[in-house]
Amino acid sequence: MKKLIIASTSTLHGGNYLEYLMPALQGHFKGCKSLLFIPYARPGGMSHDDYTKKAAGFFAKLGITVKGLHEFEKPTQALTDAESVFTGGGNTFLLVTQLYKTGTMPVLEEIIKKGTPYLGSSAGSNICGLTMQTTNDMPIIYPPSFKTLGAIPFNLNPHYLDPVEGSTHMGETRETRIKEFHAFNTQPVLGLREGSWLEVKGNKVILKGDLPARLFRQGKAPEELETESDISWLK
Amino acid sequence: MKKLIIASTSTLHGGNYLEYLMPALQGHFKGCKSLLFIPYARPGGMSHDDYTKKAAGFFAKLGITVKGLHEFEKPTQALTDAESVFTGGGNTFLLVTQLYKTGTMPVLEEIIKKGTPYLGSSAGSNICGLTMQTTNDMPIIYPPSFKTLGAIPFNLNPHYLDPVEGSTHMGETRETRIKEFHAFNTQPVLGLREGSWLEVKGNKVILKGDLPARLFRQGKAPEELETESDISWLK
Repeated sequence: MKKLIIASTSTLHGGNYLEYLMPALQGHFKGCKSLLFIPYARPGGMSHDDYTKKAAGFFAKLGITVKGLHEFEKPTQALTDAESVFTGGGNTFLLVTQLYKTGTMPVLEEIIKKGTPYLGSSAGSNICGLTMQTTNDMPIIYPPSFKTLGAIPFNLNPHYLDPVEGSTHMGETRETRIKEFHAFNTQPVLGLREGSWLEVKGNKVILKGDLPARLFRQGKAPEELETESDISWLK
Repeated sequence: MKKLIIASTSTLHGGNYLEYLMPALQGHFKGCKSLLFIPYARPGGMSHDDYTKKAAGFFAKLGITVKGLHEFEKPTQALTDAESVFTGGGNTFLLVTQLYKTGTMPVLEEIIKKGTPYLGSSAGSNICGLTMQTTNDMPIIYPPSFKTLGAIPFNLNPHYLDPVEGSTHMGETRETRIKEFHAFNTQPVLGLREGSWLEVKGNKVILKGDLPARLFRQGKAPEELETESDISWLK
């Protein structure tokens, strides 16, 4: 049975790394002694080692030992053997490129289906959707494909930002960008505000956190979904 | 001799379409009777026809007749024959995909080199750089390549946005994104604020408009460049 936490962000303003998710993660990783961290998204160009240390610092509080996927000679085998997996945020283009290059994309898809507990934040959440085409990231590297894990049957826009009232900036709003996406693609896009996450258990998908999420569907007006909504119907 | 105006945005807050560029465009397109408009970037999913009408509305004031590239059976021939060219903004992934699909990317590169007067705004400016990898747009479609025209020997970030002081949003700032780009790519990136443009004449590149631009180079601290700076040295 699938078991995922898919978070908009790792960190809330004024909070510490993963802190706001602590209660949810205690339940999610209950009984786990080890976690495999996927550091490929390298936020700000941070090294794999430094990023893994950051994740390990948090999971030590849960009594969970962390290793980085980059430490293994056979990353596909490491994933198959993993007790639990966390993919950190950063640049989605880089993350997806590395997952394809190392052959780990299909293995990750498989172990998630089989029920290995998974946590994603930001870029690590983006890849849970059907494609990475609703990321906010810069295309700093050319990935072999935009197709991602499809652990949920729609796309995500993490760090969803509402239009800023009175803004004089003429660049596209997030909503305009998603509208452009829907001129060419049919799948729904869920805008997850910072502090929201999805809890996936089997085919059940629940919106968690303090905020509503914004749902965009092709040819329909955007809708607000209240927290604790069951969105298992969405596809 | 190359002759380009490469603008951060088509429209300033509170202004009309291309209005702020009017004095520059009068000189740039002096003597031109016709202009070929490339509407491929389709802002907000707008149709090619509607977008071309919008451009035509502006250029009528300059006594210039506009046709859309989509109206021609042989777009490569239309480009070769064009007296002047304008590529409008919208989604850069879509624009680049269409330029490759129609075989017009290399032809556009060629006619710009030969001296056909060119205007780009936003996505239409992005493609003047070496690659489209410093766009802000969403990857709504998978282009065959991120390589673009290289009409200038560096990359651009149009609609450049300074970090918002006191912001509680935890998504990456533009500066962080460009830093991530430079973890993997060597070319300089010029952040063009809304209201700035580059005037290219042969190998001479001058920064125009009321604002400074922000220059990012690999391994160096970002720099501010004053308007009217000659940046022909930059590569």
